[in-house]
Amino acid sequence: MKWVRYQDRAGINHGILKGELIHEIEGSPFGTHQRNGRSVTLRAVRLLPPVIPQTFYACGLNYTKHIGEAEGFLGKQTKRPTRPEINYRAVNALIGDSEGIIIPRDSAGRVQYEGELVVVIGRKAKHLTPSEALSCVFGYTIGNDVSERVWQKLDRILWRPKNTDTFKPMGPWIETDVNLDSLVTRGRLNGKQVSEFKTNRMIFGIADFIVEISKYLTLYPGDVIWMGADAPTLDMVPGDAVEVEISGIGTLRSPVVAEE
Amino acid sequence: MKWVRYQDRAGINHGILKGELIHEIEGSPFGTHQRNGRSVTLRAVRLLPPVIPQTFYACGLNYTKHIGEAEGFLGKQTKRPTRPEINYRAVNALIGDSEGIIIPRDSAGRVQYEGELVVVIGRKAKHLTPSEALSCVFGYTIGNDVSERVWQKLDRILWRPKNTDTFKPMGPWIETDVNLDSLVTRGRLNGKQVSEFKTNRMIFGIADFIVEISKYLTLYPGDVIWMGADAPTLDMVPGDAVEVEISGIGTLRSPVVAEE
Repeated sequence: MKWVRYQDRAGINHGILKGELIHEIEGSPFGTHQRNGRSVTLRAVRLLPPVIPQTFYACGLNYTKHIGEAEGFLGKQTKRPTRPEINYRAVNALIGDSEGIIIPRDSAGRVQYEGELVVVIGRKAKHLTPSEALSCVFGYTIGNDVSERVWQKLDRILWRPKNTDTFKPMGPWIETDVNLDSLVTRGRLNGKQVSEFKTNRMIFGIADFIVEISKYLTLYPGDVIWMGADAPTLDMVPGDAVEVEISGIGTLRSPVVAEE
Repeated sequence: MKWVRYQDRAGINHGILKGELIHEIEGSPFGTHQRNGRSVTLRAVRLLPPVIPQTFYACGLNYTKHIGEAEGFLGKQTKRPTRPEINYRAVNALIGDSEGIIIPRDSAGRVQYEGELVVVIGRKAKHLTPSEALSCVFGYTIGNDVSERVWQKLDRILWRPKNTDTFKPMGPWIETDVNLDSLVTRGRLNGKQVSEFKTNRMIFGIADFIVEISKYLTLYPGDVIWMGADAPTLDMVPGDAVEVEISGIGTLRSPVVAEE
């Protein structure tokens, strides 16, 4: 099932997408809800990030090739993670499908995409065991962890290189029926495929992260965990169009524009 | 004016505190609102964190003595920040006044308080100049940036040492009328004063951070910026009671308990 969050003349709604038609829902995807009988075509609405998380988790380095690549753009040795350690991103940076990634005026220009699987939490969870871990997952969506590589090298922390406004496209929807091992992530720049990797071939898996996080932090419905990207990630410039496709979920499209 | 957020039998409400009486408010502190005629005494309610931020910013090292202290507990040299760089905390960790700080079962035991001034943003803001910066501030509250020092040394990032459930007491209320230069922050452990510093004697001031953040990230109503703490910060153990007082704002009290 595909859950969308969208804006039309009536306001902001949740809905279930079937083919090209959105069936409007009253209530929360994570709680009681029902169809209210209204429907609207997908092309008639503006898609929004499918959820606004209370806490926005991100894995950082979680694929083998990306570590080597990060050593390249950071210009220093980077240790392979030995435990599933999580980081945070900022909600201001979220945008939906087809919204523009804005390159800031004072960026040095090395702004890159990172196509990632996003786990959407469906229920409150603490102290989950490995066998229970995936039971708190509501579904999956796609994220583009846009990163300014010059700032990533200059700054003490990732606040600016990863969390500048519009640097976190997420969507187009949440897919609840996913076979993790069959997923493939592909990046396309201006229609040309530039990266491809087996989505679930992570250093630490989704269950590993959920077990470790939930030892200390309560997960809440709507929280998201961005699972990291594999290499290569490439520069984007105003005028480009970037797409992240994860087979079985969908395609997240973002035009790239300059800050006015 | 003191804004409280609280829970009583009728649910969760915002209110304005005058003396010991809370006047209940309908609407948002950051938008249109009005008294609804109901009132309740402060002692009859459970205070909640006075706001749940969309993005939860924290300054980290922003006082001179705390840098030397951090070098002690981290066991390594720490550079004095040369620019106002911000970090993030996680909303799951927030608790209100008088709620217990829970020491996790597998903590090595070095859990410390850090009493901090918290800036509460009142309106959407981007690209603010130094002279405009404070105009987006709604008011101020108090935070205790509880930190597990063993994990802070072990972990690659601050996700666990700073963001474990209950590690972010915030409150008791938002004070809108504050003279920043007159503020003094005091920490008390079991009633005994253990730290005291001039709150506004920061390495980078509130306006510096707001200017720098808002160059890249849009600030939203309800966002909070925790401004950092000065030394010393000390270990807390179950059974302790910790208080952070900022003159002109109030006192944030937290009992310390063990995880069951």
